Amino acid sequence: MNQNNPTFDLTCDLLRLESVTPNDETCQDLLIARLAPLGFTCETLVSGPDDFRVTNLWAIRRGTAASAINPSAKTFVFAGHTDVVPTGPVNQWLSEPFTPTVKDDGHLYGRGAADMKTSIAAFVTSIESFLQQCPNPTHNIALLITSDEEGPAHDGTIKVVEMLKARGETLDYCIVGEPTSNEVFGDMMKNGRRGTMSGKLMVKGKQGHIAYPHRAKNPIHLFAPALTELASTVWDEGNAYFPPTSWQVSNIHGGTGASNIIPGELVVDFNFRFSTASTSSGLQERVCAILDQHGLKYDLSWVIGGQPFLTEAGDLSNAITHAVQNHTNQTPELSTTGGTSDGRFIATICPQVVEFGPVSKSIHQIDERVEIACMTPLSHIYRDVLLQLIA
Amino acid sequence: MNQNNPTFDLTCDLLRLESVTPNDETCQDLLIARLAPLGFTCETLVSGPDDFRVTNLWAIRRGTAASAINPSAKTFVFAGHTDVVPTGPVNQWLSEPFTPTVKDDGHLYGRGAADMKTSIAAFVTSIESFLQQCPNPTHNIALLITSDEEGPAHDGTIKVVEMLKARGETLDYCIVGEPTSNEVFGDMMKNGRRGTMSGKLMVKGKQGHIAYPHRAKNPIHLFAPALTELASTVWDEGNAYFPPTSWQVSNIHGGTGASNIIPGELVVDFNFRFSTASTSSGLQERVCAILDQHGLKYDLSWVIGGQPFLTEAGDLSNAITHAVQNHTNQTPELSTTGGTSDGRFIATICPQVVEFGPVSKSIHQIDERVEIACMTPLSHIYRDVLLQLIA
Repeated sequence: MNQNNPTFDLTCDLLRLESVTPNDETCQDLLIARLAPLGFTCETLVSGPDDFRVTNLWAIRRGTAASAINPSAKTFVFAGHTDVVPTGPVNQWLSEPFTPTVKDDGHLYGRGAADMKTSIAAFVTSIESFLQQCPNPTHNIALLITSDEEGPAHDGTIKVVEMLKARGETLDYCIVGEPTSNEVFGDMMKNGRRGTMSGKLMVKGKQGHIAYPHRAKNPIHLFAPALTELASTVWDEGNAYFPPTSWQVSNIHGGTGASNIIPGELVVDFNFRFSTASTSSGLQERVCAILDQHGLKYDLSWVIGGQPFLTEAGDLSNAITHAVQNHTNQTPELSTTGGTSDGRFIATICPQVVEFGPVSKSIHQIDERVEIACMTPLSHIYRDVLLQLIA
Repeated sequence: MNQNNPTFDLTCDLLRLESVTPNDETCQDLLIARLAPLGFTCETLVSGPDDFRVTNLWAIRRGTAASAINPSAKTFVFAGHTDVVPTGPVNQWLSEPFTPTVKDDGHLYGRGAADMKTSIAAFVTSIESFLQQCPNPTHNIALLITSDEEGPAHDGTIKVVEMLKARGETLDYCIVGEPTSNEVFGDMMKNGRRGTMSGKLMVKGKQGHIAYPHRAKNPIHLFAPALTELASTVWDEGNAYFPPTSWQVSNIHGGTGASNIIPGELVVDFNFRFSTASTSSGLQERVCAILDQHGLKYDLSWVIGGQPFLTEAGDLSNAITHAVQNHTNQTPELSTTGGTSDGRFIATICPQVVEFGPVSKSIHQIDERVEIACMTPLSHIYRDVLLQLIA
């Protein structure tokens, strides 16, 4: 237990649960136990096939304006995910990844510490604090939590958004708790995100004995010059809101396992993070042109994970800026860098979606960690935004 | 029983024994039973761990020159292996792989028929025939047989060679009974083999989220230009006996499986088949120079599977050529193509090592087979070489 730091305590409780995508591992039960006594109606929405069960939580506390007489209540939503990415090699971690551990550097270590269990904890503690100051707020407060943000995201936030659309529920403000700070806590929020598009490429060669290379065609060798070109291509220069489009290989696999066989196929997974300066179809054409120019035989399939989205500066970003300035010595930059987030789904039913949370440097890495000193300020920033927008 | 074809009969007896590496399954006992009555001293040398017991046979018959008065006896060795590779799916074979079966196409089917139980049988029958014609040869005749040629070859021929070295025993001529014929029986012998050397390369990057490529280092991208250069390098031009050295990647693996993570490592298995125009140490230095030139951080380990060996055209290859011409309508080409063989070990104590045997097309495959019509000529060719070199 940390002295008078309820955000720290709840973060530790969440970090102990091995909630690798798509498993929630009862994280959301911890939230429900805190929210229900505060007047939240909590709905659990399970989605996905038997071998990929996603747990989603929609929790809403209606404000005083939410009556037949005055149905003008606004809805403020905290959105986030309880799932975390796999640990990678556990023996390379300084401490057990699912044992929250404080180190001398003032950080709490654990998988999900930055992305994004600290923010989830701060959602809860900020609401508790807000309701102490303002027991009967005018407007609605909600949480939209999923256990499939780091995975395919087919059965997570999008399903809740579809449910809300079907009910005619509208949202007004959404803070997504992604770790948006760059170098120091409070230096950046995200008012949009790049698009993401993945490709699965199978380069075709001809299998054969390694002692007779002239009778085989090695797809690994054939692909090397095209890979060099793809990795060095400038796809665009970005624009006022977005950094340049990037292309990265995530997985490459070729070989039978045997040391004396030239494989017949090479499989490559790659991903674009693209700005509004490029289009998904234009990028697809350029990749195929490079592969064709190198004379490759291949199969290639595409998945568009999300088109770019953008929230212009407005009430929400201004409220966040003000609160951050009050609790840190930072003025957060508006940025659209980084990965996708579930903000892209929420943006389809919510005019203002801004992401704000801890420093992202260690996310998805060995020794993921969060600065303990940012935990209480984060909770206070969230609370102050509630006070400014929906009290 | 086949009419007057002792090579066929002994081949069938050997094929019935399921001598998958490293098990000899009493094959060598059949040989000892034939050789001991002819004056051979037979030594069995068992080597290897409990779960990989290799059986080796060293059998030698001293010639009349092997006396204190005239210790100038030469030694002629037949070398080979009784072990065979696994059958693969038995139900895909036309007949039971360990039931020698004659088919209408004039072939004897069975695992080991071509690689190399027919040659082993021909060793024995050629010696029997030779000693009938020449009951008291001047020089020594020997057999060096192992049950671990198709496996790691750590406890097979190399152990017998070490024993002979320790005794100061020298060899003069060696025929290895590998199936060296290419299209038709007698068209090719092998007077050397390329070396083989494998490398396991681990290229080091830095793992990270695919949306923040500037915070990670993608080892797949970093390696691409080096791979391009390695795959296009001309290592040597070969020489009169060897094709150029070849470099091939057999396996490449990078990626965590997740589509949004830049992996921290890339693992690449590669293999050199190298001629006597290059050295193993020289090739290692050149690979490292290319990796270093591209600024890569990496671990690299090497396994030298076999150094190249070469027997220049001479007494032995001339005797084989002459005998083949007498018993077939072929003039065998001298070649160094193909995989490794135990010839590389014997070459360290024997100046002339040449491999000659049946057609290799079906080896290691389903429905391995040998042409019955080549059996007696093979035995006669071996016998005639003995008559030419050591009578």
